[in-house]
Amino acid sequence: MSILVVGSVALDSIETPFGKKDEILGGSATFFSISASFFGKVNIIATVGEDFPKRYLQLLKERGIGTNGITIAKGKTFRWEGRYEYDMNIAHTLATHLNVFQDFAPEIPHALRNPNILFLANIDPDLQESVLKQVKRPKLIACDSMNHWITSKKRSLEKFLHKVDIFLLNDAEARQFSGESNLMKAAKAITSKGPKSVVIKKGEHGVIYYSRRGHFVAPAYPLEYVHDPTGAGDTFAGGVIGYLSRAKKIDDAIIRKSMVYGSIMASFAVEDFSVNRLLGIKLPDINRRYADFKKLTRF
Amino acid sequence: MSILVVGSVALDSIETPFGKKDEILGGSATFFSISASFFGKVNIIATVGEDFPKRYLQLLKERGIGTNGITIAKGKTFRWEGRYEYDMNIAHTLATHLNVFQDFAPEIPHALRNPNILFLANIDPDLQESVLKQVKRPKLIACDSMNHWITSKKRSLEKFLHKVDIFLLNDAEARQFSGESNLMKAAKAITSKGPKSVVIKKGEHGVIYYSRRGHFVAPAYPLEYVHDPTGAGDTFAGGVIGYLSRAKKIDDAIIRKSMVYGSIMASFAVEDFSVNRLLGIKLPDINRRYADFKKLTRF
Repeated sequence: MSILVVGSVALDSIETPFGKKDEILGGSATFFSISASFFGKVNIIATVGEDFPKRYLQLLKERGIGTNGITIAKGKTFRWEGRYEYDMNIAHTLATHLNVFQDFAPEIPHALRNPNILFLANIDPDLQESVLKQVKRPKLIACDSMNHWITSKKRSLEKFLHKVDIFLLNDAEARQFSGESNLMKAAKAITSKGPKSVVIKKGEHGVIYYSRRGHFVAPAYPLEYVHDPTGAGDTFAGGVIGYLSRAKKIDDAIIRKSMVYGSIMASFAVEDFSVNRLLGIKLPDINRRYADFKKLTRF
Repeated sequence: MSILVVGSVALDSIETPFGKKDEILGGSATFFSISASFFGKVNIIATVGEDFPKRYLQLLKERGIGTNGITIAKGKTFRWEGRYEYDMNIAHTLATHLNVFQDFAPEIPHALRNPNILFLANIDPDLQESVLKQVKRPKLIACDSMNHWITSKKRSLEKFLHKVDIFLLNDAEARQFSGESNLMKAAKAITSKGPKSVVIKKGEHGVIYYSRRGHFVAPAYPLEYVHDPTGAGDTFAGGVIGYLSRAKKIDDAIIRKSMVYGSIMASFAVEDFSVNRLLGIKLPDINRRYADFKKLTRF
């Protein structure tokens, strides 16, 4: 099944205890699409500035990712600067320059208006809604959000969530959105607000999948080396959605497996800066780590 | 197989967002033994003061727990006062009155010097060593420790750990003991210091079992209601050791199951103050939650 992702393509400047990198490839749609590209066909809707390096677009194309929906707007590319502490759960945003992303109003090219799966990465919920209006109802709609929209556009977000099959957010966002400290209560409260299911991403602590039909919990793949957690959540989503895109029928068993594939993809992403580690692996590496995870967790 | 536990029996005064309780039954040996008593025969070595309520000793006896090793010393019982924040991972010690526990020098009665399994709860590593000298080499030796001993008696602890099969500690202690922030690196570093295996208890985030032969990771049983996390770690240990005490042969599969039984026992303990919830359940409740956890985590 074809996947359409709407999100950001950005240039990140990142400092972690393991080094500092300037203007490296980042953005939610970037991490998502590269992760999903191991499993299926993905098209990106995003906007970049005239300064966006051609080699990065080339890199996406070479992975079979559709880039026709990436518009090159007048101005500069969205930039994010961040620093992680020794405990890399603690991130500090040093600067956010929205640049051309400020005026991002996604227009879906005609050829891309019939996706099987739609993933709306973290953007203004009004824009998420506007995308939905432009496409033929996909078989599966998933979305992400963030603290900023939960604070400033909660009503829009809640309205939009009624149309969503899988709502992905991290633990802090889940607590904020629901007003519940306990994550199981938070998951229950969120699903009562509209989405068919919610996925709470807990980073190194794993994931909770919660739907009215059933729940699934999994630890993260345990790593000895974490070099840069940027993009882990979007890479997770790319693995989940990518895996689901291969399924003939999306049932409980497939969803559980997709969560583990998402975790495995994220475990690779954080082992190096930007998408570097993802570019260095192949499907057998992913399957090997999946089998390893199965061994690590079975009882 | 018979289990001998050496640790504390105490009176706790606890404040959580769900209430405040004074002078309730606590202590590492208490939580451990009640948890393990669902699976096998446990004897306690501990000391209490003359003020220790008889009904608490009675309560332990009624569960088949051997209390002959609990000495009643002149003075007052060990007391701990603590307060938990809304995020119950954050605990504040308000007061610690060691009282008779200050001079605790465990003497093992002759009849108890041949345990199959020995669990040395969190006490001075020199005392842990002294207990080991008094008993015939058990089939399995497990122990816990805490930040205080890691700081003040690291050398004693390290020397002692060479004799230990399973070393249980929480994530903060594992980081402190190893000097490694990453828990997989911490686990590796700790096992290189002597114990055959290490169990890192991550509270609501689950558990890591690490030995030179293999590893196991599991999430915690997801709960909607956590009322008091006091004793969760010792209850976990009681479930692990209790389950192992029933095994004919302790192999990898049994160890994995024991970790899950430990998690399940801890999940009950935190649902109420003191040992109240543990006293209200029976083995079928435990097995039901175990089966539920299996369903929740399988993929």
